[in-house]
Amino acid sequence: MIITMRKNTPQAEVDKIISSIEKKGLSVIMIEGTNYNVFGVVGDTSVLDDKYIASSPVVESVQRIAAPYKMANRTFHPTDSIIDVAGIKVGGNENIVVIGGPCSIESKEITFEIAKDVKDAGGIMFRGGAYKPRTSPYAFQGMGTTGIDWMVEARETYGLPIVSELMSVDKLDEFEEHVDLIQVGARNMQNFDLLKALGKATKPVLLKRGLANTIEEWIMSAEYIMAGGNENVILCERGIRTFEKYTRNTLDLSVIPIIKQKSHLPIIIDPSHATGDWRLVESMSLAAIAAGCDGLILEVHNNPESAWSDGAQSLLPEKFKSLIEKGKAIAKVIGRGM
Amino acid sequence: MIITMRKNTPQAEVDKIISSIEKKGLSVIMIEGTNYNVFGVVGDTSVLDDKYIASSPVVESVQRIAAPYKMANRTFHPTDSIIDVAGIKVGGNENIVVIGGPCSIESKEITFEIAKDVKDAGGIMFRGGAYKPRTSPYAFQGMGTTGIDWMVEARETYGLPIVSELMSVDKLDEFEEHVDLIQVGARNMQNFDLLKALGKATKPVLLKRGLANTIEEWIMSAEYIMAGGNENVILCERGIRTFEKYTRNTLDLSVIPIIKQKSHLPIIIDPSHATGDWRLVESMSLAAIAAGCDGLILEVHNNPESAWSDGAQSLLPEKFKSLIEKGKAIAKVIGRGM
Amino acid sequence: MIITMRKNTPQAEVDKIISSIEKKGLSVIMIEGTNYNVFGVVGDTSVLDDKYIASSPVVESVQRIAAPYKMANRTFHPTDSIIDVAGIKVGGNENIVVIGGPCSIESKEITFEIAKDVKDAGGIMFRGGAYKPRTSPYAFQGMGTTGIDWMVEARETYGLPIVSELMSVDKLDEFEEHVDLIQVGARNMQNFDLLKALGKATKPVLLKRGLANTIEEWIMSAEYIMAGGNENVILCERGIRTFEKYTRNTLDLSVIPIIKQKSHLPIIIDPSHATGDWRLVESMSLAAIAAGCDGLILEVHNNPESAWSDGAQSLLPEKFKSLIEKGKAIAKVIGRGM
Amino acid sequence: MIITMRKNTPQAEVDKIISSIEKKGLSVIMIEGTNYNVFGVVGDTSVLDDKYIASSPVVESVQRIAAPYKMANRTFHPTDSIIDVAGIKVGGNENIVVIGGPCSIESKEITFEIAKDVKDAGGIMFRGGAYKPRTSPYAFQGMGTTGIDWMVEARETYGLPIVSELMSVDKLDEFEEHVDLIQVGARNMQNFDLLKALGKATKPVLLKRGLANTIEEWIMSAEYIMAGGNENVILCERGIRTFEKYTRNTLDLSVIPIIKQKSHLPIIIDPSHATGDWRLVESMSLAAIAAGCDGLILEVHNNPESAWSDGAQSLLPEKFKSLIEKGKAIAKVIGRGM
Repeated sequence: MIITMRKNTPQAEVDKIISSIEKKGLSVIMIEGTNYNVFGVVGDTSVLDDKYIASSPVVESVQRIAAPYKMANRTFHPTDSIIDVAGIKVGGNENIVVIGGPCSIESKEITFEIAKDVKDAGGIMFRGGAYKPRTSPYAFQGMGTTGIDWMVEARETYGLPIVSELMSVDKLDEFEEHVDLIQVGARNMQNFDLLKALGKATKPVLLKRGLANTIEEWIMSAEYIMAGGNENVILCERGIRTFEKYTRNTLDLSVIPIIKQKSHLPIIIDPSHATGDWRLVESMSLAAIAAGCDGLILEVHNNPESAWSDGAQSLLPEKFKSLIEKGKAIAKVIGRGM
Repeated sequence: MIITMRKNTPQAEVDKIISSIEKKGLSVIMIEGTNYNVFGVVGDTSVLDDKYIASSPVVESVQRIAAPYKMANRTFHPTDSIIDVAGIKVGGNENIVVIGGPCSIESKEITFEIAKDVKDAGGIMFRGGAYKPRTSPYAFQGMGTTGIDWMVEARETYGLPIVSELMSVDKLDEFEEHVDLIQVGARNMQNFDLLKALGKATKPVLLKRGLANTIEEWIMSAEYIMAGGNENVILCERGIRTFEKYTRNTLDLSVIPIIKQKSHLPIIIDPSHATGDWRLVESMSLAAIAAGCDGLILEVHNNPESAWSDGAQSLLPEKFKSLIEKGKAIAKVIGRGM
Repeated sequence: MIITMRKNTPQAEVDKIISSIEKKGLSVIMIEGTNYNVFGVVGDTSVLDDKYIASSPVVESVQRIAAPYKMANRTFHPTDSIIDVAGIKVGGNENIVVIGGPCSIESKEITFEIAKDVKDAGGIMFRGGAYKPRTSPYAFQGMGTTGIDWMVEARETYGLPIVSELMSVDKLDEFEEHVDLIQVGARNMQNFDLLKALGKATKPVLLKRGLANTIEEWIMSAEYIMAGGNENVILCERGIRTFEKYTRNTLDLSVIPIIKQKSHLPIIIDPSHATGDWRLVESMSLAAIAAGCDGLILEVHNNPESAWSDGAQSLLPEKFKSLIEKGKAIAKVIGRGM
Repeated sequence: MIITMRKNTPQAEVDKIISSIEKKGLSVIMIEGTNYNVFGVVGDTSVLDDKYIASSPVVESVQRIAAPYKMANRTFHPTDSIIDVAGIKVGGNENIVVIGGPCSIESKEITFEIAKDVKDAGGIMFRGGAYKPRTSPYAFQGMGTTGIDWMVEARETYGLPIVSELMSVDKLDEFEEHVDLIQVGARNMQNFDLLKALGKATKPVLLKRGLANTIEEWIMSAEYIMAGGNENVILCERGIRTFEKYTRNTLDLSVIPIIKQKSHLPIIIDPSHATGDWRLVESMSLAAIAAGCDGLILEVHNNPESAWSDGAQSLLPEKFKSLIEKGKAIAKVIGRGM
């Protein structure tokens, strides 16, 4: 940690800050500059609150040198984490996984039809929303437990592990029992009570990036889950909020090489929610594969026009299938299976 | 609702969409344009999902005409809502309320000292965080129930109603019993399960705007609480996330006249969290008053350098006091008490 | 164009607006809604100023139906434009072009070395900045005419057409004479006087997207050049400004399929400036190819550590070469040469 | 400047970087940390290019300590600069200036009418656009020289100094001769050739903040003009681009105390362009005054509905007048004239 103070700061003020740091077992070394003096703090600076120090009127700025995450940090875990989702490996040099399914679970019949389509096209997990985070209280809020039950039955029939979004701690037992990969949605990325509860869970977690969260905050949310004891976290980019109006969100594919640099966790991409438009999904999926992602999560519906939510971004099964075929060819070029 | 389709769309496709809308009891009128045909949907369009319609490949765009909120909408409730917080009126032409207190509750002694300072300076409610949403799992997470208890004792001594943040549904009973104004933090603005639970609560809610949420989404979150039966919602702006680096967030004061236009709910401003720097708090507070806000929520600490969180943005009691004095003079100019 | 007014608007006000529109030769059709009346304007609405109409206090909103661009609009020019840059074809199903070179031209020797490296690696055009837009007046501002001359000599030796940025109208003659593809930088994307001057130029233009400009504004800037008579415009995405701090800018690859949908102009990608970090350039380049771009513009330097600007984002020649090889394999998968 | 490298960096690499810095006359001091070594560079670091250093693969990060601006920096010029615009003082404790006028100059008659209205209401300068930066090439581009001439005539009649936007260097002579305060628009904030030309001008410059420019970049653009020899720069905030859709831009009033902290230059606010809606202008103007701005620039039109551009954001003369009256009362509270 680097603390900057102006040169003319009274020595008593400087000493007060330094001694408060030294009391915590860290040492401080000063570099005298032209207009500023710079103090380097040596030791485990995670015990310090940078805002605590910046609050002093004599402090110009406080900058952390080391990233604030530890368990999710590649520096301390140089090899890729490979997460096991009901027997399917995600990350490292394992095959790129393709997760498909409808935005929301609507009926048993459609659930089964789409699960079959996903399976036939080469999808390896089945996604579906039973509890839906909707901007409007008047919109369809999901089938709840019934939806989960239908997914479980579809898994029995088609053998695809299931992925679904958990919105509150009180449903965690249900998800622990039935769901193979528990999704945390973008709007709950910093619902810290939910993250803490998932830290005690035994199932792997798919952690979506918040709409306006930095990569650092996103990794810190993974750290919450890991610090609680559950190290099975898969990160998922789904677009960030910008000023652009032609897409719902801006898909930030540069997270792929950055996550590989900063963390050992797998990273998968959700082009359906990011773009909000099925016409953009194939090209963004192929781009994600070329950039080195560990998986894709895609909305698939056999009748998008009558889907109860997000039909506009859903692929028809035949589009989903041809996307997987093209994706395999791209994956091969970069030395990866799919 | 306005639906646009290209002129050369096959009639069968057009009819399919129109009949699906008419089945819901709405009528559709077409305007033939030069390159596009435009279809106006007449009736209660809140039963339609615009994404449902936009999902059709023949639809160019779908635009809503009416705002998606009803209970929070000024059109249908032209008079200002005045919210009662333990006897204190917020909104309308009532006095501008000033809420002060530390970011987090640390010890009983400091809690009492600051509550006294807030009271003496002219503050009318006391705020303090007992449950803290922290980006890092390694940071101080709040005193929990003990913190709430100290606030309750401080209320008994100084008579200031208390405001604190609720982070999860399982603490709602505790808040219902002890807290006068239940705060929903920026990170939980779209934690819909929490909003639904608050819709059943009897205490008023202070709803902070999410870091990257539009005003419309914010009002929709108020609508969630109101639709559940609790119409006592106060909106609170606390800065939005932008590219600017000299402030923590960008305080958006234009929400004040916009909220007054679009909604009948009171709007208060939190310059402490928005700017993250106590040196900016006074000028932003005076600006908020001049712009017509219904209240301010400010961080006050008698020893910011040793605060356990967000000391950098806390005002010393004497600064808080002089801010209130200047604020009263500004309020007077615009015809408002404080 | 769709104009919305509240139902209780006095008829005289409504008539005033309608007659002002009809006077311009357009017709207006009303749809009576539940709370609002909607007026559809039929005819060439490009003669109307939507802000002119929205300025009326009785108007709730004004929404355009048709895109504001014509010459750049794919609706009116369904086939891809293929731009000729000194004999090299860009766009359509032509080979994906790779443009390489240093951020800024520093010395004749280095210019020649890098041009040779670009040529040997398979690059097809040579880029270099002679006039540099620098945030600081104290930073190196470019070699100017001398830099252009060295690039011209390098072209004579290695046969690569040259690309360079024009910063002001008074250098246009120099660029017309010497440069093969005239670049407009992100900061000048809405320097309308420069765009107008380029509308009269005979050389093709590489138009970078502004840091915070929507896709629509970007196409409108292309429209400026085209409306002036120069239809040879190539669009170039170079990242947009967001809240994220781990990259310099956020590369928005979804522009590739969107530009293909909305416009007939070619689109190339600049991952070097977008990311600001050479470690991210290869994966973003391969992603861009997979997404269907028409070309890449990449910073290449044989000694990035001593480059006078933007060394951090420059590829070494061997990295540039291996990127091109991988890129060719990806291009082949999507049916494109490179 | 602080350079961070990992602890295991080969000494030869470290030495290479240090010696390249020492060659420029600076000294380097190392602090050995737990996982990283930190190097403090002492001396005039403005001769170093931080990207140059960050380009090394062994460098983790480079952070500047001192702000990159000098002439505009309050540290080196502690007293407020007061800019003289044709005899009117702007900045320091001088009166808050109010500049009013139409977005664009349309006819001599309307120019005179509005100038009279501005004068009568208490405005102190007259603004009007003769050269207009318009997103569309098909929109009205301004009256040019004729417009400037009408403004000059209006100045002769009403005595108000005139403010107008310069879009390109080739009109600088015209502006030097006729205009009292030369405006640089948001889209040209980083048109560095224009800034350099204005550095040689004798007239003061009103420098608008770019739509997506940080405060630091904005001050750096002022620095460009000042470094050229023209120290008469007034900064003007006009809203930044965010995700919010209910306002055209987000007015960032926190720039007022920040500019006062970081720089000695005056800061004025343009609520008309920021909000794009006259209904928001008064409250944002009063807020700006309460926050300590040195002036306001406001759009005024006697017939907004027929204005040729931006009518929606123009105040009627009577609204402008009442705004000034309220503003004076607020100004008085904070100890300032207006």
